[in-house]
Amino acid sequence: MELTPGNAEIGFIGTGVMGSGMVRNLLRKGYRVTVYNRTRSKAAAVLAEGARWADSPGALAAACDAVLTIVGYPQDVEQVYLGPDGLVERARPGTYLVDLTTSTPSLAQRIAAAAQARGLYALDAPVSGGDTGARNGTLSIMVGGDEEAFQAVLPVLQAMGQNIVRQGGPGAGQHTKMCNQIAIAANMVGVCEALAYAQRAGLDAQRVLQSIATGAAGSWSLSNLAPRMLKGDFAPGFYVKHMIKDLGIALAEAERLRLDLPGVALAKRLYEQLAGQGGADDGTQALYKLYAAAGPA
Amino acid sequence: MELTPGNAEIGFIGTGVMGSGMVRNLLRKGYRVTVYNRTRSKAAAVLAEGARWADSPGALAAACDAVLTIVGYPQDVEQVYLGPDGLVERARPGTYLVDLTTSTPSLAQRIAAAAQARGLYALDAPVSGGDTGARNGTLSIMVGGDEEAFQAVLPVLQAMGQNIVRQGGPGAGQHTKMCNQIAIAANMVGVCEALAYAQRAGLDAQRVLQSIATGAAGSWSLSNLAPRMLKGDFAPGFYVKHMIKDLGIALAEAERLRLDLPGVALAKRLYEQLAGQGGADDGTQALYKLYAAAGPA
Repeated sequence: MELTPGNAEIGFIGTGVMGSGMVRNLLRKGYRVTVYNRTRSKAAAVLAEGARWADSPGALAAACDAVLTIVGYPQDVEQVYLGPDGLVERARPGTYLVDLTTSTPSLAQRIAAAAQARGLYALDAPVSGGDTGARNGTLSIMVGGDEEAFQAVLPVLQAMGQNIVRQGGPGAGQHTKMCNQIAIAANMVGVCEALAYAQRAGLDAQRVLQSIATGAAGSWSLSNLAPRMLKGDFAPGFYVKHMIKDLGIALAEAERLRLDLPGVALAKRLYEQLAGQGGADDGTQALYKLYAAAGPA
Repeated sequence: MELTPGNAEIGFIGTGVMGSGMVRNLLRKGYRVTVYNRTRSKAAAVLAEGARWADSPGALAAACDAVLTIVGYPQDVEQVYLGPDGLVERARPGTYLVDLTTSTPSLAQRIAAAAQARGLYALDAPVSGGDTGARNGTLSIMVGGDEEAFQAVLPVLQAMGQNIVRQGGPGAGQHTKMCNQIAIAANMVGVCEALAYAQRAGLDAQRVLQSIATGAAGSWSLSNLAPRMLKGDFAPGFYVKHMIKDLGIALAEAERLRLDLPGVALAKRLYEQLAGQGGADDGTQALYKLYAAAGPA
């Protein structure tokens, strides 16, 4: 049965920049939403817009038909789902649990198994599209898990995103998000190196973009992030520290799959160098700083 | 004065796949074109369509108002321009020399200086857009050299391309093309690694593209070459051996500019590994083979 505004109580854990945008879109579609966040003050805005508050993940789970989560790191996901007073322990049988965090495929599989053992349905459903996509309801959502559970929560996901694809069983959403991050990270290295070369060679880098951005060198990052790099705008759309987390997951999974990813390894090394220089809270386009200065080590 | 079909004899050296497409577009616009190619048989098609034949670069130069060249490697460019019976020696004063080959910025500068000393105008004008762009007249052309000379040959370039930008003085076209190749090569590593991860993780890679190709991971290569990789279609749009040449130029120039480009260095190493396995005449998307097999070394 599909979860509609008329028949479903939605719980939402994690009201950061991404989560707040998503909760707002659920409220706009008429869903009743109960939220929990570790730091309550970060939920103030969505509470003012009609969301209700729960005092713990467990309390929230006990009152909802579906619980969505978007928290920081895999250890946070594990705590919220599998910890004491967590979602798997407290949710009522038949509840849908949907993790929107970018986390590890293996943890997604463990959660799905634990959920199934208690008569719950768990989906991994990481997103891409950033704060803009969360605000505008245009996220891409990559889903892993049971097909029937996917169909049931689809209306809820459609309130938050546009390109919603079930990629396979438990963990497949996380694996797909890794593909996304792999492609982004290696391309960012190329975008930075192309711009750094342009500037070092004495070219007008803006004019170079005019020549190269619409052809075979073209990419979302070249069109959207290169202009920010050139302006020195390193404000976070997506944090360097989160990219490092994601690339760490990708490399660990690849090792398990016996796949060597030297491009990802290089990008992670460069991002770690940037973080070591104080750039962990910059946006990922700040990788350009490494090249604009002395160049990467 | 602009070079129009009514007032200009055009010479064209290099009637390979790219050059033949360009000559055809010049003929279509009404230009009279004389061609030379090291292997005459490769000029047969354009000769049948109305181009005339010259027996050497020097003979061709002596009869033309503008000479365009697109040959293989920088040493070929040097030979054609600066060698005995070459363009600089044989062209009449006032002739425009336009090199469309992807070659070194420093050679472009040497040619420009030698041309100027003899009262000739030389432009470096490498292209991107591949054989399709050459055939359809939709190439991007990146030009370095004198502004007046650029304006004079612009109608000729417009017969062959669409996105035609003067990037600066002699060598600036080549430098810009290097930016293009840098961005392409590093991104290709990311595209291959994303697909290889998808397949190794047991995902349906086509479906993964549905999730990731239109967002922040999106690129020309992900949309256009990833599907060919998955089909095992490694036919050349752009040769691996030419990519290795271009990345070699980029790295040598970067070293001269004291700029470290680890992403380019990695891509070049992987392409050389592929060439070492017999892939020199494959298309650049064949990089995927390295990952689909045992993975890169």
